[in-house]
Amino acid sequence: MTVNLERIKRDILTLAEIGRNQADRGIYRMAFTDADMEGKRWLKEQIAAADLPCEVDGAANISAILEGHSDAPRLIVGSHIDTVPCAGALDGTLGVVVGLECLRCMHENGFQPQQTIELIAFSDEEGRFGGMFGSQSVCGLINPEKLATMKDLNGILLKDELERQGFDPLAALDAARDPESIAGYLELHIEQGPVLDSLGKSVGVVDEITGLFTWTVRLRGEANHAGTTPMEMRNDAFMGLADFAHEIPRILAENGSERSRATIGKAQILPGAANTVPGLVEFSLDCRDTSEETLEELSAAFRKALSAIARRRNLMFEFEQKSYIHPVQCSLPLVERLCHQARALGLDYQQMHSGAAHDAQIMGRMVPTGMIFVPSKGGQSHSPAEWTAWSDIEAGANLMLSTLRDFG
Amino acid sequence: MTVNLERIKRDILTLAEIGRNQADRGIYRMAFTDADMEGKRWLKEQIAAADLPCEVDGAANISAILEGHSDAPRLIVGSHIDTVPCAGALDGTLGVVVGLECLRCMHENGFQPQQTIELIAFSDEEGRFGGMFGSQSVCGLINPEKLATMKDLNGILLKDELERQGFDPLAALDAARDPESIAGYLELHIEQGPVLDSLGKSVGVVDEITGLFTWTVRLRGEANHAGTTPMEMRNDAFMGLADFAHEIPRILAENGSERSRATIGKAQILPGAANTVPGLVEFSLDCRDTSEETLEELSAAFRKALSAIARRRNLMFEFEQKSYIHPVQCSLPLVERLCHQARALGLDYQQMHSGAAHDAQIMGRMVPTGMIFVPSKGGQSHSPAEWTAWSDIEAGANLMLSTLRDFG
Repeated sequence: MTVNLERIKRDILTLAEIGRNQADRGIYRMAFTDADMEGKRWLKEQIAAADLPCEVDGAANISAILEGHSDAPRLIVGSHIDTVPCAGALDGTLGVVVGLECLRCMHENGFQPQQTIELIAFSDEEGRFGGMFGSQSVCGLINPEKLATMKDLNGILLKDELERQGFDPLAALDAARDPESIAGYLELHIEQGPVLDSLGKSVGVVDEITGLFTWTVRLRGEANHAGTTPMEMRNDAFMGLADFAHEIPRILAENGSERSRATIGKAQILPGAANTVPGLVEFSLDCRDTSEETLEELSAAFRKALSAIARRRNLMFEFEQKSYIHPVQCSLPLVERLCHQARALGLDYQQMHSGAAHDAQIMGRMVPTGMIFVPSKGGQSHSPAEWTAWSDIEAGANLMLSTLRDFG
Repeated sequence: MTVNLERIKRDILTLAEIGRNQADRGIYRMAFTDADMEGKRWLKEQIAAADLPCEVDGAANISAILEGHSDAPRLIVGSHIDTVPCAGALDGTLGVVVGLECLRCMHENGFQPQQTIELIAFSDEEGRFGGMFGSQSVCGLINPEKLATMKDLNGILLKDELERQGFDPLAALDAARDPESIAGYLELHIEQGPVLDSLGKSVGVVDEITGLFTWTVRLRGEANHAGTTPMEMRNDAFMGLADFAHEIPRILAENGSERSRATIGKAQILPGAANTVPGLVEFSLDCRDTSEETLEELSAAFRKALSAIARRRNLMFEFEQKSYIHPVQCSLPLVERLCHQARALGLDYQQMHSGAAHDAQIMGRMVPTGMIFVPSKGGQSHSPAEWTAWSDIEAGANLMLSTLRDFG
């Protein structure tokens, strides 16, 4: 039993036209917009066309069900079909389309699994209203306070948007599942990074999903005239930032792992005039690793470096942790099972970690979780240039199918 | 013969109320605004009250004349009374008020100098329409094209503003003087830097005025996901900027002088998201020295460093020179004369350079020029906190008076 690549192609290309902006060629299916709802309707039609029962829970997650022999805990395969603004055609969509194809294949081949297999398309993974709303609802991580206050960048409340689309805003609380009812969660996703592409491998088996902390750091010195202030009498806030950036490779080498990443992606320099020594910089630090302990060590090393630089340059230093996401270990038995199936299919796979967050990161805190990556050409994602060779998609899809089929 | 400090105080404090914003306590007498015109009217009244002839040239520069015995080339003492937005009370205003007091003193003491002494208050030194408009007009550096196109940050044309205030926009061309008619130019100005204040000296005698170049530099890499892109596969434009900033102290130490300054005052990081590796940075470089040769060496060293960093980090690099101002040497005889007078007055003076541009920089390209600095408390300027002790102002003013008096 193998997947039908033509159906996967058709589904990907059809969904790519829902929410497509012809001007920039990007796809705009942000959660609970009309385009996202059209995508959800299309998915329900495909599930019906495949002669599979369709369910929609209180968080507007859409499921297709392949009933098993027994009432053993079910296996869930999923991802999401909402997109960032100006997205490409794959991202989470690929995982949903592949999951649907797997259920369709098994169903039309008359294969009935031991435990029920459920395909789920989670709502708002991309974060119009904060991110991973659907998987958090399933894991019971949503509460009435969040439901009342979550809003998008334009100030539109999630509850208003849910109501506008015909949902009961409090029903997301009903979407929580009993962990005992789920045997495992599997997700296929594009890598969104350059590793598989540069290694020339078709699939990746994810063993860990990175955790991260983000800081906002402020260094405050004194704004002064760039011509009249001698170099040694300056309290130049920007030079403090440059010193810190310069320390990043050392800090990663001393305290991090090969899976560590640290990025200064955003910086504001004030007053921001060419002829004025900067008096204030505010910048972001995004730091990731798959080990909680390593994250802690990196955090301590960054604090020490900032504090020493601030002392040396006579700057005030403050930082605020804006977010912390726990790293998640994939289920070792599932990782081994995926590797075994990849070998059985003759696939050249790479065991690797995920540097991006996924619904799997939420699900992985509750149930055994595994992930399959397929290569992102040039490492590109979240843009119309995002792409994966059809042959790699087929390889990843067959790995998912054989893993689901042999799970019981 | 000594200056009357009470009259200087009165003039400074009176002018400080013209254009004062009560909310932020700043002074707003930007060139050719109504407040600036009110300042100019006030100055003409003071000149008349001192019983000195008043002249206004085509660039709206205002002069007071103390006729000399002979028709030898005249000595000019000057500065400006226009301000930056939210200015303090001193800056150029102090030099004009001190110059007026010097002429007033000599006139009321019945002292007639050998050569005519002229006090001049130049128009738009601070740069609402580009800067040093009055002194450039006097030096013949203005042309009809500039007059037709110079505009302020709000797009208001200089010629429209001149007309609105009752001036003939082309008359600035008539303001050009014959260099042979001028024996020298002297200017008293606040230092606008922390050197005299930190040394505890009352006056500075300026020997050189810094030159400068400003660049806009762009480093272009590739914007990538901060989680999925391994550190060694990044083309991080911001890290290129940090590398460059880190090289600045070395470049100054190797190629500069103790008068060299280099500042990154402005930087834009794109796309500017905490979770995205920066794909583009655009930043300013302001570099100053009093030697043209040193500026050239620094420029070459900065280019080499940028080029090496761009190669190492796989970035594209381009830069654009936004401005170049020649350094100016003050007249050695004038510097010596000022130092001699300072010693004769028992002043603890400091021979030093000016890190900021002044009308003296324009005048110094045409005629022998000298400058007196008085300390800026805490190095502050261009803000309501700008201040100089009255006793230092008195010392600087007496140095100017005795230098003018003994010039012939």
